[in-house]
Amino acid sequence: MSYTAPVKDILFVMKELADIDGIAALPGYEDGNFDAAQAVVDEAARFCGEVIAPLNVTGDRNPSAWSNGEVTTTPGFRDAFRQFAEGGWQGVVHPSEYGGQGLPKLISTACNEMLNSANLSFALCPLLTDGAIEALLTAGSDEQKARYLPKFIEGVWTGTMNLTEPQAGSDLALVRTRAEPQGDGSYKLFGTKIFITYGEHDMAKNIVHLVLARTPDAPGGVKGISLFIVPKFLVYDDGSLGARNDVHCVSIEHKLGIKASPTAVLQFGDHGGAVGHLIGEENRGLEYMFIMMNAARFAVGMQGIAVAERAYQQAIAYAKERVQSRPVDGSAKEPVTIIHHPDVRRMLATMRAYSEGARALAYVAASHSDLAHGHPDADARNSHQAIYEYLVPIVKGFSTEMSVDVASIGVQVHGGMGFIEETGAAQHYRDARILPIYEGTTAIQANDLVGRKTVRDSGRVAQALLAQMDQTIVALIEVDGQAFKSMHRHLSGASLSLARSIEFIVAKFKSDPNAVFAGSVPYLKLAGTVLCGWQFARAMLVSYTKLNEDKRFHSAKIATAEFYAEHILSHAPAIEASITSANGQLGVLALSEDQF
Amino acid sequence: MSYTAPVKDILFVMKELADIDGIAALPGYEDGNFDAAQAVVDEAARFCGEVIAPLNVTGDRNPSAWSNGEVTTTPGFRDAFRQFAEGGWQGVVHPSEYGGQGLPKLISTACNEMLNSANLSFALCPLLTDGAIEALLTAGSDEQKARYLPKFIEGVWTGTMNLTEPQAGSDLALVRTRAEPQGDGSYKLFGTKIFITYGEHDMAKNIVHLVLARTPDAPGGVKGISLFIVPKFLVYDDGSLGARNDVHCVSIEHKLGIKASPTAVLQFGDHGGAVGHLIGEENRGLEYMFIMMNAARFAVGMQGIAVAERAYQQAIAYAKERVQSRPVDGSAKEPVTIIHHPDVRRMLATMRAYSEGARALAYVAASHSDLAHGHPDADARNSHQAIYEYLVPIVKGFSTEMSVDVASIGVQVHGGMGFIEETGAAQHYRDARILPIYEGTTAIQANDLVGRKTVRDSGRVAQALLAQMDQTIVALIEVDGQAFKSMHRHLSGASLSLARSIEFIVAKFKSDPNAVFAGSVPYLKLAGTVLCGWQFARAMLVSYTKLNEDKRFHSAKIATAEFYAEHILSHAPAIEASITSANGQLGVLALSEDQF
Repeated sequence: MSYTAPVKDILFVMKELADIDGIAALPGYEDGNFDAAQAVVDEAARFCGEVIAPLNVTGDRNPSAWSNGEVTTTPGFRDAFRQFAEGGWQGVVHPSEYGGQGLPKLISTACNEMLNSANLSFALCPLLTDGAIEALLTAGSDEQKARYLPKFIEGVWTGTMNLTEPQAGSDLALVRTRAEPQGDGSYKLFGTKIFITYGEHDMAKNIVHLVLARTPDAPGGVKGISLFIVPKFLVYDDGSLGARNDVHCVSIEHKLGIKASPTAVLQFGDHGGAVGHLIGEENRGLEYMFIMMNAARFAVGMQGIAVAERAYQQAIAYAKERVQSRPVDGSAKEPVTIIHHPDVRRMLATMRAYSEGARALAYVAASHSDLAHGHPDADARNSHQAIYEYLVPIVKGFSTEMSVDVASIGVQVHGGMGFIEETGAAQHYRDARILPIYEGTTAIQANDLVGRKTVRDSGRVAQALLAQMDQTIVALIEVDGQAFKSMHRHLSGASLSLARSIEFIVAKFKSDPNAVFAGSVPYLKLAGTVLCGWQFARAMLVSYTKLNEDKRFHSAKIATAEFYAEHILSHAPAIEASITSANGQLGVLALSEDQF
Repeated sequence: MSYTAPVKDILFVMKELADIDGIAALPGYEDGNFDAAQAVVDEAARFCGEVIAPLNVTGDRNPSAWSNGEVTTTPGFRDAFRQFAEGGWQGVVHPSEYGGQGLPKLISTACNEMLNSANLSFALCPLLTDGAIEALLTAGSDEQKARYLPKFIEGVWTGTMNLTEPQAGSDLALVRTRAEPQGDGSYKLFGTKIFITYGEHDMAKNIVHLVLARTPDAPGGVKGISLFIVPKFLVYDDGSLGARNDVHCVSIEHKLGIKASPTAVLQFGDHGGAVGHLIGEENRGLEYMFIMMNAARFAVGMQGIAVAERAYQQAIAYAKERVQSRPVDGSAKEPVTIIHHPDVRRMLATMRAYSEGARALAYVAASHSDLAHGHPDADARNSHQAIYEYLVPIVKGFSTEMSVDVASIGVQVHGGMGFIEETGAAQHYRDARILPIYEGTTAIQANDLVGRKTVRDSGRVAQALLAQMDQTIVALIEVDGQAFKSMHRHLSGASLSLARSIEFIVAKFKSDPNAVFAGSVPYLKLAGTVLCGWQFARAMLVSYTKLNEDKRFHSAKIATAEFYAEHILSHAPAIEASITSANGQLGVLALSEDQF
């Protein structure tokens, strides 16, 4: 099953919802206008479809393999990564002074979606390198930037994030890896890190680990964590590679999915200490890591959208090919392709509505990030940054949770064939399952959304988004037709549900934290449901005015928006009930631990 | 991870909701009272926990393997099946005249739940044999019954269902396998059957295939299908085994889950023809197969409940052991086990509420089946049979769909560890995924629910259930307390949603079948949601009166009922919107085939 990038929808979202031309008007983004975006997207679509996508099944059947501390990746990955590097794809969004293309995040978001649709396992390697680049750009010294960034962007070295330890998963306060200063500015690191994506592989000449560890006098908890750079091979001042560092891959995991992506257990310092250098200041490691993580969390949200899109394409292809049963309305006497059956159509529409809705929201978020970086006015920058930060946990949590459901529906569309591994639908179901877990589980995203993103500013950013949404709701009234009426009704109700939930969370956060956190994931889900619905409302308003330009595309957008309103957005009041009915003493926490 | 049968909840449901003592009062079921049930359940719990459950992981890691037409099952399966047979477990529900125990279906339902929780793959073999027994009891000749039933019940032979062919999945009208009469009363069969569960294995001395095929002059479509009995080894009149029949397993599938259960491709007649005998009359095969399928569909629904329960137990065990992060309410300064975190508690409560609710509904359905067989009054028998038949597609569709969600939540509770195969949580996620597919996909169940079970009697049975539900709703008003108020509010609203949906379906079935079938799966989901909610309402009313007898159990039941009301039942109005907003021209079918 091949992958054909949904270029038309991607460009529609970039132009009509995420205002690519507005971003191209910002200083520094002059090269990022719609025409440029279109050229990049077309080329990425070709590369991902032709080179990367065919390796997706290969990777599932021939996972990366560990032997004697070395990892051999799936056949074809090395060559594909070389082509990826040569095409300049690692540098799309990164600064031109280090060899990147300096394009808006909005454009790189599209590239990332396509790369991930083509191959989640493959795309993880550049995804992690992107995170390392972000962290060094923010907190690295000039010397560190000069030493590492060009190599990352050139695609000859790759980066990793080393947070998790066996006892420290979501709770980084429990990190134990030690970093001992050597007096010469360097440190030696000792400890075990697990779940390190591409922690060892054979696609790059060096692997550069960014590692959370504690210095000897550091305070306990998260305030005593520093960030270190620990390359697999030491790097001379001229950039050439020196001795093998004391960090070793002792095993990789046997996983449910994304099997081509090696998930390493890394041992630091078993042979005298792994040489590392501090990034930024001591004890500020978590802060820096959050920069990396915010980029990575957004990127994982894109992975959700990407695998949903791929699963959707595969389901459509099967539904258009598989002949089974006569139509329920008696319109044909012979069996028809199953796409003619209403329930199959409902499943496909559900997959499509989730994928398109989540895409629109994520691209709009990326656009806020670009405005936060490039807008000439400081207040505007801050305001866009706040919106972007509000949206990141939603893009991550909502897009990844829905991707599991969408991949599951994809299996269902295939019937019995979906359960046979050869078909390929099951791979998406297995692959998607990690997405709501890594880079912070959905609960961790929801905690972030509640605490840092909603309560800290008393819901101001959230309410500002609701105020913008109100304008769209008003605009819906102006348009005739069942689809617009339906969207108006459901979006009005859903936005009120979201507004009341935000009020509840802000009001109860201090007095009844258990109640608020019991509803935190439902709140994230509600916010995602409503905000994606809003994007559909905006999209259908645009499509209404452009129906004559491309009837097939725009009428499909309006129909999908209506479907979203009636089948997905319609659940908003029920999700609200789950949030606001919560009560620290009753409800979710009514069962005591020993009653489970 | 071991399995401990939820004996207390099973017995509570049998006694308080499914009226086991009422069933024991029926002629023929005198041995099936509560005390007897308790003894059987206790013994089944022990057997399943000790003997069968430990083989679940074994089977996943060492799937059944095919070689030269023979299948070797997972190490340990043969011996376990022998113990299963010796314990008389195949015969619990079957007539004593053929060696069974003749106990109510309500009791065998409990046994089946536990066997499936212990090991879905293992339990499939007896599940299929049960189906073959049912079909022969209904349509077999006395000679066929005498020849096969004692061997099935003794557990020395097993049965299979052969429906599917490559081109004939959900659509049995497309079956092509031929049966040519030989003039001596026997037939020779030619064709290929796929997806045959335990179509070949090494646990029994003979495998008896029940096969759908067409005789030479049969009409086309489903009205020309007959049912044949085709044993792997021919059977002499004295019951001893003769020559190898011409049915051969040419391969087994490489599947996403239930890997220990061999899924065979069977080739009939490649070497002269497979000898078969007609069951019942020619061209009535589908009718007989439906008997088998109704039993099997109910049993697959039980598989959903079973795997949900197992996933739930595994998630609880991890949540009680894994230490991570301090409590959000500041009640401790050190990290705590994650079961203390509100969102983990929410996930566990969701898993529990689905499992308990679906269990209650399924056992109540089994009880209706017993009343349909054993009630002295013919009208009462018919009425209970009609209710049972209404409930079967709901038990199958709802319990299996929820099992996928519950198993997915189970992975999520484990965080990153859930994605590592060694943990075992992922197996449930993989195993569960077949359940909404085989024995009729959820869409097929929903078609059955809409067409045969709702529209055919103009919604009478469904409305009778709603009338009974009204009595429970009234009773809820009488009890004080937040939980009862909450259930009253949500169940009242949800029952109205269901009532209106039934009205819509009955009214529109002829005029707008596309609209009705576009909402058929939502209707099934709504019916399941509401009917399980009703059982929770009944359960909490009982628990309220028995709080002093067992405070821990009954207060947990009331709390779980409240959770179900607020987090699951609360979605009923939104599901109703998905059903009644449907319109054959707009809505689900608004996108044309080529717009996908």
